[in-house]
Amino acid sequence: MLAEAASARGLTLHIVGIRGEARDEIERFPHTWVKWGEIGKMFRALDENGCGDIVIIGGVDRPDFSNVQLDLGAINTLPFILSLGKGGDDHVLSRVVRFFEQKGYRVHGAGDVAPELLAGEGVLGGRTPSAEDKADIALALRVVGALGRLDIGQAAVVVKGHVLAVEAAEGTDAMLTRCAELRATGRTGRRSRGGVLVKAPKPGQEERVDLPTIGPDTVTKAAEAGLSGIAVAAGGVLMAERGATIGAADQHGLFLVGVTLAERNGA
Amino acid sequence: MLAEAASARGLTLHIVGIRGEARDEIERFPHTWVKWGEIGKMFRALDENGCGDIVIIGGVDRPDFSNVQLDLGAINTLPFILSLGKGGDDHVLSRVVRFFEQKGYRVHGAGDVAPELLAGEGVLGGRTPSAEDKADIALALRVVGALGRLDIGQAAVVVKGHVLAVEAAEGTDAMLTRCAELRATGRTGRRSRGGVLVKAPKPGQEERVDLPTIGPDTVTKAAEAGLSGIAVAAGGVLMAERGATIGAADQHGLFLVGVTLAERNGA
Repeated sequence: MLAEAASARGLTLHIVGIRGEARDEIERFPHTWVKWGEIGKMFRALDENGCGDIVIIGGVDRPDFSNVQLDLGAINTLPFILSLGKGGDDHVLSRVVRFFEQKGYRVHGAGDVAPELLAGEGVLGGRTPSAEDKADIALALRVVGALGRLDIGQAAVVVKGHVLAVEAAEGTDAMLTRCAELRATGRTGRRSRGGVLVKAPKPGQEERVDLPTIGPDTVTKAAEAGLSGIAVAAGGVLMAERGATIGAADQHGLFLVGVTLAERNGA
Repeated sequence: MLAEAASARGLTLHIVGIRGEARDEIERFPHTWVKWGEIGKMFRALDENGCGDIVIIGGVDRPDFSNVQLDLGAINTLPFILSLGKGGDDHVLSRVVRFFEQKGYRVHGAGDVAPELLAGEGVLGGRTPSAEDKADIALALRVVGALGRLDIGQAAVVVKGHVLAVEAAEGTDAMLTRCAELRATGRTGRRSRGGVLVKAPKPGQEERVDLPTIGPDTVTKAAEAGLSGIAVAAGGVLMAERGATIGAADQHGLFLVGVTLAERNGA
């Protein structure tokens, strides 16, 4: 999506994809595949294609370092690579950004290149949150803010004032599956539809490389968890498949809203 | 365990158990079974047995209100009961305590009656946390503190500076199962044993009725999740099966320590 948006703007681009992480669709554009650890090859691909400006995008699992094959470029950066094994995601990502910047690359956020891929503000679908939903959104924003300050996660589910689930390393999909199970087993004592998923970037997060994302699958899983809707930080959450995401929300009867972070801070 | 400890102290007691929640073992003591909603029957059992001092203990699922049979005593307290459907656990439990207090009962914590059921301070088993473990414990205590202030949960798992999982409504066992899955699928990129489970009561929590608990099963699940050990708030976590819990930790090679909450506050 980002490559399409950049092309549409007349930008020349080259994609470096990590094998087993990036999708084959990158092959529709000029590209180079690298394996985990082929850092020298990555830099050659960037330099041979004149990429002084880069965007780092897409989730990756933390690599199993025992399976990584280090090339010569990687050996030179070994102390840096080993340092990535520790700390929270934000800590890791900030160091990745600094790593590229120290080598002279300019690192941009996806939203800088294609702001239309970010969630907008206000009611994005056909439904509007109720007063109860808004109270749940406000609490969930506070929760996600607290999570973010500790570099834990970017999402939480609140149902009628009760924090049902909080995202850490498992990711949003797994968290929503858990919410659906909690509801199915009656653990939450709430059979009627209700509650919200909130996604927002960590405060002070390296937003250029780790924007939270939302797509049609997120909406479907939120519906399966019996939630009333989804609130995302306006301008702070990637919504690449915009039409399909809003369409899924309307189809499942969920509201989908973009909230400003001022609301998180109680303004 | 609490009834045994109270009996050993020469206290006279009567147990009111909720059907489907309390275990049959309460029948070893003078007892009355009530169903969810039989609030009149509960008060009669307390009053006929001279129970002016009560301890509320044991986890319950949030009842499915559609299955609750309300007796006459419950009808009188209906506004109160309905109010319990909203808000976080702490909010709910504080209201339950106030409800009993307003009726003239004195509510005590399990630790007041039987302090030997609470986790002690220091190294409780045969193993000692490493410097890395201690750093993970410190971060996890900060995380659990932040969770508690928002009335979310009482436990977190931190692995080498990375917050792997955070407990909300699913409970500690489900959170540890998730950690084991994350490790098995290599999502965390960490195959070697490491990381800690920390349990601590919510700051300002109604500790009289909602102490976090730990037992041999917790230890087994922490071992299955590949953790190095467990830290609990000394004096703030129920460890009813003390010998079995410490034995499980030693058997699995996990450390088990009681930390003071001053450590959480950075002292």
